[in-house]
Amino acid sequence: MHELQIINDFFSKVSANNKHSLNLNDDVFFHRSKSLVISVDTYVEGVHFINFQKPNLVIKKIIRSSISDLLCKGVNPKYYFISGSGNKTTFTKKNLKLISKSLKEEQKKYSINLCGGDTVFSNKLSFTITSVGFSNKIIYRNKAKINDDIYVTGNLGDSSIGLKVLQKKIRLNSKLTKYFIDKYFHPNLHKNLTKKLLSFANTSIDISDGLISDLEKLINKQKLSYKLYLKSIPISKNIKKLIDLKIINKMSSISQGDDYQILFTATPTKSRIITKVCKSLGVKISKIGKICNYSKKSQIIDEKNKKIAIKNKGYIHKF
Amino acid sequence: MHELQIINDFFSKVSANNKHSLNLNDDVFFHRSKSLVISVDTYVEGVHFINFQKPNLVIKKIIRSSISDLLCKGVNPKYYFISGSGNKTTFTKKNLKLISKSLKEEQKKYSINLCGGDTVFSNKLSFTITSVGFSNKIIYRNKAKINDDIYVTGNLGDSSIGLKVLQKKIRLNSKLTKYFIDKYFHPNLHKNLTKKLLSFANTSIDISDGLISDLEKLINKQKLSYKLYLKSIPISKNIKKLIDLKIINKMSSISQGDDYQILFTATPTKSRIITKVCKSLGVKISKIGKICNYSKKSQIIDEKNKKIAIKNKGYIHKF
Repeated sequence: MHELQIINDFFSKVSANNKHSLNLNDDVFFHRSKSLVISVDTYVEGVHFINFQKPNLVIKKIIRSSISDLLCKGVNPKYYFISGSGNKTTFTKKNLKLISKSLKEEQKKYSINLCGGDTVFSNKLSFTITSVGFSNKIIYRNKAKINDDIYVTGNLGDSSIGLKVLQKKIRLNSKLTKYFIDKYFHPNLHKNLTKKLLSFANTSIDISDGLISDLEKLINKQKLSYKLYLKSIPISKNIKKLIDLKIINKMSSISQGDDYQILFTATPTKSRIITKVCKSLGVKISKIGKICNYSKKSQIIDEKNKKIAIKNKGYIHKF
Repeated sequence: MHELQIINDFFSKVSANNKHSLNLNDDVFFHRSKSLVISVDTYVEGVHFINFQKPNLVIKKIIRSSISDLLCKGVNPKYYFISGSGNKTTFTKKNLKLISKSLKEEQKKYSINLCGGDTVFSNKLSFTITSVGFSNKIIYRNKAKINDDIYVTGNLGDSSIGLKVLQKKIRLNSKLTKYFIDKYFHPNLHKNLTKKLLSFANTSIDISDGLISDLEKLINKQKLSYKLYLKSIPISKNIKKLIDLKIINKMSSISQGDDYQILFTATPTKSRIITKVCKSLGVKISKIGKICNYSKKSQIIDEKNKKIAIKNKGYIHKF
């Protein structure tokens, strides 16, 4: 079974009488009259991060990954809880110092505050982060409209190359190695864009499992399809180099996830204001495709105007 | 290192500028102007529950253990999140059905609603429960006053015997076996007492680590001591039988924790109203001792009016 199946088959009904759970399909809980937004995510060693050799970097990554769920929906995170399961070798004084230093740095960078959590003994290292924000408005999933433009912030794929380097699946020169590993550990969140998003995005999600996988999740309860243009999908100059050298291919690198960029759709009339706002904030923004009628099949068009067959849509959480 | 040391040495400072964290010393986050109360707890197989042979019972126990943190502070839990880490053998369809059935039953019993969570792959089974309630008032820790009476609800120790039976450390007849195992899996929370507590308790905590351990936590930032009378500490008739048979001793059985009864202190003038309220709600209540001046050493007095030397104060979360 995969995660979505578990939620649909066993947990959706449990939350059926509770409209604030958003059918467990939105990655957050939203209580409008309490202006309350909460997300909960668990990160396991060997699944969500390779190991704990660099506790300071792992902590930064998981904090950002967690608050990204709120930021992509137009909500500034304000508080967070961290619950860590570990043992004597993972929760050493040295590691705890590094964890606490990273938390302080992330708190400053993203204006968030530690509120509590738990520390428990386990021979398997994992963390659960609960992020809390206050807003009486959020951008929901499944609110795309036919003919909407599809946008994505920043670049995709850098993080996945960083992971491959760390896993020793790719060897690169020291400059590129440093670049991609840094991108893997430090997702570049766009906190300054968050509140603006509310004024133009019809629907949004953060890219954690891969562009295609998350785009399909974004509209999974709607009868809609999409058309994406591969050449418009933003990548860094450094990824372009690897593609030119045939070390990787573009379609695969944008489908690995872990990017934490914001994917959203907007009515075409918003195009100018989106460009203007993003320019003024220094946020790279790319129009990568269109939302289409359900009668058309979803498709990705390559540089030569040919349809691409999608083999691997992205990361699937399997059990 | 143990848990309190980790929090004090590495995390208290991280949350120092955030008054709502209550110095990470209260088991909950409380934001008065938002009327928001949140607790986060993680439960690991082999530490917080023995195994997953009875998923339905384990889930009930951890949900109750989590909402107990709010109930003991005068707050009704309203929402909860469950984040489970497991694998193919733990998250089978059969087990997921049992989990979902138990969640529905607990929701009905305690008027709580599932709001979200996460399901991730891990070979070590664990759950993190985030409980949320709304209240502009809570009962804090460390607000005891000299000469306060010390009260506890229900009976202590039943759960710890249930654990020993499950661990095959004690063998009992089938009737007692059933009784104690039931007490282990189904902590008896006093939801109806919660709101009343606000009107008479000066300070409160739920008993998870053991009576003495939790009493000391309750006043750990105050210069106070306590005097407890062993004979007043409430136990069930069934535990009394085991004590009479010298299978266990009272002091040890009340120090094992996992009781989820409410321990609180109150000004002596509240004595009559407490008795009256608890009687009308059908909640067993026992006055077990006094809060004393710091110049006196904390003490426990046995049936023969002698001081007891405390060997094991309760469960300590060690790393």
